[in-house]
Order: sequence, then C-alpha cells, then structure tokens
Amino acid sequence: MNKNNCYCVIMAGGAGTRFWPVSRVNRPKQFLDVAETGKTFIRHTYDRMLKILPQENILIVTAERYRDLVMEQIPELERHNLLLEPYARNTAPSTAYATYTLLKRNPDAHFVVMPSDYIIENEELFAKTIEGAFDYVEQNDVLLTFGVVPTRPDTNYGYAQVLGGRDALKYNEPVKVKTFTEKPDKDLAKIFLASGEFLWNAGIFLWKARTICREMEKHLPQVTGLFRGWEHALGTGVENEFITKAFSDCMNISLAYGVMEKTDMAWIYPVQFDWQDVGTWESLYNYMTERDGNGNAMSADKVLAEDSRSTLVISPEKKKLVAIKGLDDYIVVDTDDVLLICPKDDKKFKDFISQIAMPEFEKYR
Amino acid sequence: MNKNNCYCVIMAGGAGTRFWPVSRVNRPKQFLDVAETGKTFIRHTYDRMLKILPQENILIVTAERYRDLVMEQIPELERHNLLLEPYARNTAPSTAYATYTLLKRNPDAHFVVMPSDYIIENEELFAKTIEGAFDYVEQNDVLLTFGVVPTRPDTNYGYAQVLGGRDALKYNEPVKVKTFTEKPDKDLAKIFLASGEFLWNAGIFLWKARTICREMEKHLPQVTGLFRGWEHALGTGVENEFITKAFSDCMNISLAYGVMEKTDMAWIYPVQFDWQDVGTWESLYNYMTERDGNGNAMSADKVLAEDSRSTLVISPEKKKLVAIKGLDDYIVVDTDDVLLICPKDDKKFKDFISQIAMPEFEKYR
Repeated sequence: MNKNNCYCVIMAGGAGTRFWPVSRVNRPKQFLDVAETGKTFIRHTYDRMLKILPQENILIVTAERYRDLVMEQIPELERHNLLLEPYARNTAPSTAYATYTLLKRNPDAHFVVMPSDYIIENEELFAKTIEGAFDYVEQNDVLLTFGVVPTRPDTNYGYAQVLGGRDALKYNEPVKVKTFTEKPDKDLAKIFLASGEFLWNAGIFLWKARTICREMEKHLPQVTGLFRGWEHALGTGVENEFITKAFSDCMNISLAYGVMEKTDMAWIYPVQFDWQDVGTWESLYNYMTERDGNGNAMSADKVLAEDSRSTLVISPEKKKLVAIKGLDDYIVVDTDDVLLICPKDDKKFKDFISQIAMPEFEKYR
Repeated sequence: MNKNNCYCVIMAGGAGTRFWPVSRVNRPKQFLDVAETGKTFIRHTYDRMLKILPQENILIVTAERYRDLVMEQIPELERHNLLLEPYARNTAPSTAYATYTLLKRNPDAHFVVMPSDYIIENEELFAKTIEGAFDYVEQNDVLLTFGVVPTRPDTNYGYAQVLGGRDALKYNEPVKVKTFTEKPDKDLAKIFLASGEFLWNAGIFLWKARTICREMEKHLPQVTGLFRGWEHALGTGVENEFITKAFSDCMNISLAYGVMEKTDMAWIYPVQFDWQDVGTWESLYNYMTERDGNGNAMSADKVLAEDSRSTLVISPEKKKLVAIKGLDDYIVVDTDDVLLICPKDDKKFKDFISQIAMPEFEKYR
C-alpha cells in the first residue's frame, strides 16, 4: 500500500431527524456525541482515519450550512480538503465531486468513502482491514464495499448477497456481489439471515478513483455530465461557481441506487471489525450497556424509576432528576426546548416525529 | 354583622408535596398558581377576604421559613398580622396562637379560619355566605364549619354527617353535626354519598374567639396549657420567645382531630359557593377545562400529542415543545431541575414520590 496514493472521503452532509430532538437540522447526528463516548461521531471518524492515512489525504464532504461545525470539530482540516455541497443531492453527486477532485490531484488515487456517523469499537482491526482493502483494489479493478455478518433480521440495514452462496463467504476475502437490497421488510430480512449468503452493507466503499469514475460515467451520465470541464474548474478560482451550477442542475440520487446496484463490478469484503450503525434511538439503546435491573438505560443527573422497563432516558444537559413510573419500552428525551416521550420502536418514533415537518413546529426542527 | 369584631385567619404554613415537582419545600402550593389563574392561591384567598373585611382584620399564620414569600405576595400585610410558627405542629397549635392573639386585641372577636390553597369561583356568593355565618355565630354559640354537597365518592375529602338525616339538610341553614370522618375509603365514601346525609367538610371554620378558646381548653389542655400567660406575652417584646417555647413543647395535632371530632358544639353550614380543593395533580386535571379532543390538558409553549388520552402536561416555564405519544392517564411535569412522568392516579403518584424522602434526592425536594 503506497499511502501517497490512498485517500479517504468522509461524507458528512446528512441532516437526519432520527435523533430528534437531540439532533436538529442545524446540528445533525455526525456533529453530536449521542452515545456519550467523549467525542462526536465525525471526530471519531476523522481520528480513526488519521491512524491510517496522512492528514493531507483525508477529505470531508458536507453541506455548506455545516462548514462552521466541521471547522469547529476538525480545526486541523485544511480548507482545500473540505468539499462543500451547495445543495443536498444525496451521495452520488457528492461522490462525483470527490472523485473528480482526487483525480485532478492524483490520477492514481485510490480512496475509501465512509459515512461520518458510525461507531467502530476495534480500531486496530478496522485499520488493518482498510489497509488490506487498499492493497486489494490496487491489484483488482473492483468497486469494493464492506460487509458485516448479520446477527439479527434488522430492517434498518442494506443487505448484499454474495455470488456463490454461503460457501463463498470467508473473512477478509473479497467476494463478488450478486444483489443489493436496501432495508428489507422483516420477513425478507429473516430469509436473508437464514440463508447465510447475505451480509450487512456497512456503507463504506473503496476503489480506484479511475474505476468509480468510469462506472459513474457509464451508469449515471446524467450526473457526471454536469461535471464536464472538471479538469479546468476544480482547485481554481471558479470551483465554487462550477460546483454550484453542477449541484443546482443535478438530480437527487444515492450512490447505492445509482451505481452499486447496477454495476457488475461490485465486490464485498467480509469484515470482522465491530461496526455499529447507531442510527436510531432504539439502536442507541441497544448500544448502551449500562442498564438498571429493569433494562432501563438512563443518562441524567439523577434517576428515579419505578414500574418501568427497557426505557431510554436522555437528558443531555444532565441537570435534572428524571422520575419515571409506568413506562415500558419508551424513549424520553429532554432538551432545552423539547420534551419527547414516545414508544421506543423505530417505526412508531419515525411516524410520530414526521409531524414536526408541519410549519407550526418549524422552530423545533 | 359588626365588621369591627370580625376577623379572618388564613392558614398558610403547609409544606405539601402533592404538586411536586412544581411545589417544593421552599415554595409550597399556597405560594403557587398551578391552576394558571393569574394569582397565587394565597393571593386569591387574601383578596377574597378583602372584599368582606377591613385589611387590618385579616391575619396570616405561616411557618417562619415562608415569611419572605408571604411578604412578597401580600406586601400590604402589616407585620403584626403575620403570625409565624417556629415549628410545624399542625393546625391546633396554630389556631390556639391565632385565637389568643385575637382575644388580646378584641375579646369580642369572631373569626373565620381558612386554608390558603382553595379555589372558589363564585366570590360574591362566598362573601354573602361568610357574612351570613358571622351573623349566625354572633347569635349562636357554636363551632361552625362549612359543608359542600358531595357530587362523587371522593376519598380525598373529610365528610360531616348531619344530625337528623337528609331531611335536616337545607342550603344556608346551619345544622348540627353528628360525626366527622376524614378521608374515608372508596366503599365508605360511596355509602356516604348514597345516604344523602353527608357533606364535604370545606375546612373553613367560623366562631367566636371565646367559644373556640373554651372548647380548645376543654379538649386540648395539653396544647392550651403551653399558652398560659398569653395575656401578657402576646403583642409584646417577649412574644417571639413565648411562642418559640410553646411551639417547641407542643404536640403535633390537627384542629379537626383534636377539637372538632370531640366537641358537641360542631355545626355545619351547607353552602352553595363553588368550592374546589385543587390539591392534587388529578384534581388539577379535573379543574382544567381546556382539553384537546382526547381529554389531554396541557400547559406548554407547544404541544404535539398522539395516541394519548386524559394526560396532564405541565411545563411551567412554557419554553418547550412537549411531544408525547402513547400516554394514557399520565402526568408529565417538566421543571428546570425535575422531569416527572407518572400515572395520574393520586395514590400511585403519592406512593411514587414518597421516595424523594430518601437522602439522595434531597436537593430536588
């Protein structure tokens, strides 16, 4: 692995509401430390990559509105390594922007694309895996993704089916992907799990810049066409204008849907590092191991709980006594301007808070 | 009614936890406006009496710790009309203190004793009733209490059975009391209600100072004995010392238990004014008439409620969006330092919050 040719692109533009009301449009999950680890998600992601690559080779793509948050949390990031999206257009245009930026800097660039909001416990194993993957794509012209052996029929993840069935699956040996399925329903997820030939797609991609460029131009010409002239525009005084025009005209499309599900070059790397998408209140509850005798996980100055089970209490300011009685399987989140009490189930939560899209709740979004 | 002989003693020493966490040891219910009427309970009580009596004739008895709260809320109260209890000894010693104070000022004093934490909607009818009662005790040597015709088998009230059964009961005609029963259980309360010969005891008493003095000396000599020498001590430079000694040595006993249940001079005045003891979260909920379509009564900056019924939400600072889903018959109270979520039922609430007596919760009491 020639580290000079290896880059990382951290995707940090998302504005999810899944940790509302702790996460807000103005401070989404990647800039928070909901799991109370001592660092925000994006800082973890950046530090994790700093152990593998030179700082100069780590880029962050985010929305213009999050520029200040990124600079506050990653103050050492050099300005030319921060790619700002003028409009939210999902991951395919962001990846195109990053791909052309790297190609201009180094035509032999390989790079890993990763979300900014995951928890990975075993960072050494993670580093080893990523290094192995860089070596692999140096030798092999593939679009590599990373797969985690599923342990439950989770409906919040994407699944990748490997070619050759369960016998083809070996840790640390990339295998060709047969199909991708995003967030299946429960029944399908159970079938996937039972078959033994599916992996959770960790949402991390690794490839040569040239390879992903070619595949995007093949499957998403309507996106890459907008970047025509990149060789002259990127890294110059007209970059802003060029990118604003390209994103303005661009469709909203994900890399998974636009490229990975269509290409015949997708391979998956079955990994062993402990990857966790703590992406919902329910998954945060599952992640929090400190519980009382009734399975309540609570973060507050002081807690008094009675007749309550499997309930997650989050009072981020930690100034309060939270006294609860008779709550089974709830989330209670208490911020300065919102108090949320809701069943913990992801779907119920999501349905419920979809209502904050109504104009009357604007100031609480 | 000769107003110069008529006085009022407002009892404001209680330190209940029934509106915890809005009420605290340092600011109990009488100094709050939990029902959001625009005035605190004690201010309402004082203003209501100001319509009947000269300001000079209205006294307040409270604990020393509440002196500043009283002076803040009733700034016009003259210092000699504020009787401070050095120790909490329940209502019998407070009444003794007030009785001897008034006897010293005016041996012909009649006075009404009333709690400081009730809601009375029809103040004109209330004034008429009190005036009628002053006239009655001027003519009749009785210990008069006030009775409200019960409308439900409430177990939070005291009941008075009238002599002569249901036929003896006529509005505005005092009738002799046969028995008093404090807070009966549900079955007994149902029997009381069905019999038609019981009234809710409104906790307001009216009498000649001389009459209550005589009855206290008869039934509670262990209390009145401690006030021996009152003629010389009260209203002088030694009053403080005298009262501190008397209260220090005194037993804790209520007027209802120590005198009213034992005397044969108790009469009750069946009244029609709209008296409400808003004394628990459940009764506050019943009092609040503004509800959403599912019977939720909510006081917050903004509310989003789904799958929730008959729930009371109180966010006194009114700075928050309160978003609740799946709560039936709960109370949610959100103060600066406590968040309470609990079934609304009085008994469940009381049992639950009895735990804040534990040392670890001291700062939240």
